[in-house]
Amino acid sequence: MIRVGINGYGTIGKRVADAVRAQPDMTVHGVAKRSPDYVAVGAAEAEYPVYAADEDRTDGFREIGIDLAGMVDDLVAESDVIVDATPSGIGAQNRPLYERHETPALFQGGEDATVAEVSFNARANYDEAEDADYVRVVSCNTTGLSRFLAPLYENYGIEKARVTLVRRGGDPNQTGRGPINDAVPDPVSIPSHHGPDVQTVFPELDIDTIGLKVPTTMMHLHTVNVTLENAPEDIAAVREQLQDEDRLLTIPEYAGIDGAGTLKDFALDAGRPRGDIWENCIWEESLTLEGNDLYCMQAIHQESDVVPENVDAIRALTGHLPGPESRALTNETLGIDSGRLSKRDELAIDRQTAD
Amino acid sequence: MIRVGINGYGTIGKRVADAVRAQPDMTVHGVAKRSPDYVAVGAAEAEYPVYAADEDRTDGFREIGIDLAGMVDDLVAESDVIVDATPSGIGAQNRPLYERHETPALFQGGEDATVAEVSFNARANYDEAEDADYVRVVSCNTTGLSRFLAPLYENYGIEKARVTLVRRGGDPNQTGRGPINDAVPDPVSIPSHHGPDVQTVFPELDIDTIGLKVPTTMMHLHTVNVTLENAPEDIAAVREQLQDEDRLLTIPEYAGIDGAGTLKDFALDAGRPRGDIWENCIWEESLTLEGNDLYCMQAIHQESDVVPENVDAIRALTGHLPGPESRALTNETLGIDSGRLSKRDELAIDRQTAD
Repeated sequence: MIRVGINGYGTIGKRVADAVRAQPDMTVHGVAKRSPDYVAVGAAEAEYPVYAADEDRTDGFREIGIDLAGMVDDLVAESDVIVDATPSGIGAQNRPLYERHETPALFQGGEDATVAEVSFNARANYDEAEDADYVRVVSCNTTGLSRFLAPLYENYGIEKARVTLVRRGGDPNQTGRGPINDAVPDPVSIPSHHGPDVQTVFPELDIDTIGLKVPTTMMHLHTVNVTLENAPEDIAAVREQLQDEDRLLTIPEYAGIDGAGTLKDFALDAGRPRGDIWENCIWEESLTLEGNDLYCMQAIHQESDVVPENVDAIRALTGHLPGPESRALTNETLGIDSGRLSKRDELAIDRQTAD
Repeated sequence: MIRVGINGYGTIGKRVADAVRAQPDMTVHGVAKRSPDYVAVGAAEAEYPVYAADEDRTDGFREIGIDLAGMVDDLVAESDVIVDATPSGIGAQNRPLYERHETPALFQGGEDATVAEVSFNARANYDEAEDADYVRVVSCNTTGLSRFLAPLYENYGIEKARVTLVRRGGDPNQTGRGPINDAVPDPVSIPSHHGPDVQTVFPELDIDTIGLKVPTTMMHLHTVNVTLENAPEDIAAVREQLQDEDRLLTIPEYAGIDGAGTLKDFALDAGRPRGDIWENCIWEESLTLEGNDLYCMQAIHQESDVVPENVDAIRALTGHLPGPESRALTNETLGIDSGRLSKRDELAIDRQTAD
């Protein structure tokens, strides 16, 4: 059993903790948290050992009935691997702590790529993490683009990719974030940092990206253009290719799913924990081929798509399982690709079995 | 076992179905649905017998692998009680159908009060539904106000209540609703219909309400003023009174819950189905007493607060259990009032039991 310590128990950290707990080969040794708030109450109710990240606030945990298991230093010393899920920029400050205890660590995509030897996506470059001590799981957007581009790259070759990322302003619980009535070029310079970030996973890929922010909280929306080197004759071939991939959900027209709100409603109906959507959500009607130019729109759930990638990265870093086996195990234990709308036959089969 | 048919499987219908299934004394006989969309797929995956509400669209269900159990007429004939959860105004059109089959029915608060003999709130007037054949479960806002006002009415007397309802523009999956950048007086005339609607539950209560809509989808927010007849000396008495009530959640300052986004995040962390918040959410810091004037702010989850009320109304209508017993059973089976933040001691006690 790999003892996993989670430093930072916010949007990503709490989801990674639950995902790690669902694995047969890992255990959550503990979680480190700064604030004694409702999220800390959730950690205690989930019976994760709670470590304090801030010496000055330990009394606050005691006051709300949480017995601390120790300080973050203890967690790092006692764990086989640390998942750093602290806010962007804090991860890099934490690296000396992990080095001091010789504890391998994962960082999140908010950190600069230089924080670790490898920028990681389970579908694209799992093997590269096997000899590393420090790995950076790329951001939600880069994860979503890597998953979409990998099968196209392998099957058709990519001459050039051009992507506009219409990003949500903040997460649902980030009350202070904006914009509230604007569409903001962000960054205003082109290409945005997302293209180079995808290149940390695909060094040879030619990709330009443009980023903006809008006043929503639910998901990012990507408009994607990929000029293929060897385009198939028909878009159906691409659609089937994508449907065969794991962690890609294609949305059929009949479903009536017309935006991020309905996608979240669908996920909540399906009983997904926290309504999480770990998969890229690709609208089938948007998949279009014009000569060598492939187009589509996909939604990316910024709170959760990196969660299975973190689980796989733990296995890659510890040399525990080969990539395809890790991915399959993660998918099965979390319920990824279940409730797939895109395969009409599956529902009928499920129903017949149940009858 | 009470065989419950649910006519209309949208935001409220699907939640009522799941709540009925969780009861030991009821069974979901089936659900009637118009559109063969993602919500219909969810019904089939949940293994609810699906009845078509529209003769012209039965083929669409077959095409996505859903075997229909019949038409809505069959559902009404076969059920002991119908929960009508169709869109506002359709319920009244459906009443002749229920009368023809002599099937008692519940309607939702979007219908005019004249649709049924009784307008129902489980806390306030459960007994009045016992001799009725048709009952209207009052709207989410009226439910939230009734719950809050009932204990004040009983304990202190109410001279006058004045409420501003800052309503969400639409539900998360209602892509076409507005406003998108406005705060809209709605209705612009004062009092809004909400006050008279509360009076269908408390006929003697003096209450004025003002309604508006804002561009959010998560919850309604009420600012409440109640001039008490016999005010207590200290707000603490009121707070404790409210904390002793079921279906009222009071939010302590330490939790860091500053809006509907964090409330939903808290509910999702707690593993609530669909992130539902069946309880009124009252900010403790907002509870204020100025002479005889009591003030507070509360958030109301429009998608779910009426769900337990529907379950209780089924029992009231069928004369199955007395009100307090029904409420307690509904609360226990759904997990209402669990994960309460307002009682600090509870968490510590839970943790000690777990150790």
